[in-house]
Amino acid sequence: MEYILGVDGGGTKSLAVLARETGEVVATFQKGPANFQQIGEAGLQSLAEEILQEAERSGGIRRDEIVLFVLGLAGVGRRDDHRRAEEALSRVNFSGRILLTTDAYIALMGAFESRPGIIVIAGTGSICFGLDEEGELYRSGGWGYLLGDEGSGYFIGHQAILAALKDFDGRGEKTILRPRIESHFDLTSIEDIVPRVYAKENSIGKEEIAGLAPLVFECAADGDDVAEQIVELAGKELARMVHAVGKRMKKLGEPLEVAYVGSVFKQKHVLLPVMKVFLSDHYSELDIHEPSFEPAPGAIILGLKELGKAITLEVLENLRTTYRAP
Amino acid sequence: MEYILGVDGGGTKSLAVLARETGEVVATFQKGPANFQQIGEAGLQSLAEEILQEAERSGGIRRDEIVLFVLGLAGVGRRDDHRRAEEALSRVNFSGRILLTTDAYIALMGAFESRPGIIVIAGTGSICFGLDEEGELYRSGGWGYLLGDEGSGYFIGHQAILAALKDFDGRGEKTILRPRIESHFDLTSIEDIVPRVYAKENSIGKEEIAGLAPLVFECAADGDDVAEQIVELAGKELARMVHAVGKRMKKLGEPLEVAYVGSVFKQKHVLLPVMKVFLSDHYSELDIHEPSFEPAPGAIILGLKELGKAITLEVLENLRTTYRAP
Repeated sequence: MEYILGVDGGGTKSLAVLARETGEVVATFQKGPANFQQIGEAGLQSLAEEILQEAERSGGIRRDEIVLFVLGLAGVGRRDDHRRAEEALSRVNFSGRILLTTDAYIALMGAFESRPGIIVIAGTGSICFGLDEEGELYRSGGWGYLLGDEGSGYFIGHQAILAALKDFDGRGEKTILRPRIESHFDLTSIEDIVPRVYAKENSIGKEEIAGLAPLVFECAADGDDVAEQIVELAGKELARMVHAVGKRMKKLGEPLEVAYVGSVFKQKHVLLPVMKVFLSDHYSELDIHEPSFEPAPGAIILGLKELGKAITLEVLENLRTTYRAP
Repeated sequence: MEYILGVDGGGTKSLAVLARETGEVVATFQKGPANFQQIGEAGLQSLAEEILQEAERSGGIRRDEIVLFVLGLAGVGRRDDHRRAEEALSRVNFSGRILLTTDAYIALMGAFESRPGIIVIAGTGSICFGLDEEGELYRSGGWGYLLGDEGSGYFIGHQAILAALKDFDGRGEKTILRPRIESHFDLTSIEDIVPRVYAKENSIGKEEIAGLAPLVFECAADGDDVAEQIVELAGKELARMVHAVGKRMKKLGEPLEVAYVGSVFKQKHVLLPVMKVFLSDHYSELDIHEPSFEPAPGAIILGLKELGKAITLEVLENLRTTYRAP
């Protein structure tokens, strides 16, 4: 029997899937972090070795039954990093083919079952990727909290703090964000947030600021104008990221498929309408949905394509019914 | 003879002025940093002692000839810090009166020769202070680069980087800021600025970002739309800070005097017109000018007021002709 081994390698963990060429999953498991910027050449080599061993053990197979090992890794987007990561993988004790790509690429493969489309991710940070008919990858946003992350949880929480401080110093409208943020962080006055944000210890950092996003959605639901404006702006910023990629993919006036991922989209009933208003004018049809598959089974779909297998409904059905996140 | 000793105590140095009650300056000199958050109680006590000794030496006077020692310090704005700083000063070997206030207060005293007015400061960061007829102090902005500093050099440089990245990823208009920033930092592509901003070593930090401001003004002068919008926005943000203070000082519909300070105002021919357009509607007269005096002689003006002396044209003329920044 011939097997494909797929890996979604992120900053905190790697998810691995071992599947038959029919799409049937025989094993899934987790290993340690895989971001190439963090683990480097030696780390990647030993991680790949570990994953192969675990695939043999969990799948009850021999390593030489794996015809294709697909790795979608964070931190290999740049050409030079990609080359170094490939070199590290060439030293692994494995005789089959290795396909190295980015975590974004397998996320797109999973989200659209290998069709072209755009994925927009908004958790603590935000980023947007698109894949066109030719397999070309496009990207917008994702420049991090100091240079972007528009529409993300950090963006929403940060805007809320700015608005509360502007209410305090007279530059902005009155907003219930101010007392709500004060009680969220147990502050006597909103101005006391300032030393906490710049502090080295016990500081209010990126994650804590992003953690304000649900509070901002609540204030908006309670009818606070300022909070509503922030939510509206976040939706628009996410739509702008999608549109920037759509334009470069030359999808203007064509149908567009968009998948959304990340904690901010727990509020999809608020965000999707804003995004649709912004995007509908530019595309003949707009289909915004959750990803069909997670990135790890996306690596299997990519592998099947790479092996020249048709991505039939049957194959996808097999994958859907047998895959469970580890 | 009776003397006043005034100090402008900032984060990098303190400037001291020894003057007669006629406004005539007899000595000026520099000492070390005076930000209370940095130097603490012991540091402040020994700095004050040092300044008194130097005043005796440079002025050729005895310490007991100083009737009032005015200190305008950074980092004593909060009540608790102010109380601790006063306690530290009470331990100094000095029998005259001590008047402790903020650096903002003496800056306002200097800028308007003790009249009410608003001072707007835009260097690397930005902040705005106002002083009303009753001597009450108001403030807006100044929340630092992560939470504000609107209209500052950092704000202008940061907006320029965001715009260049949005040009790059398709979200924004084309702008010459992109190639100009690339060559300014010697980058192959603007996206290479991202790791440099987040880097621990050899990073592009706050100061370097603020250092882009002159380049942004240049691009605006060369007719770049995006740069023009940033400059316009900076002017508006500075005006908003002034207006927030003006409203709380209840100056709406009244005449308003505004002084500007800081490196960003090297471009006053660009910024002042924008600020005037925004502010003129709200005040019956608008007088925007450079400060009459620097903060250090401002401490002397405050001291004279405190001693019940009239701030006559003659006193101001004496101060103007005899004060030279040390």
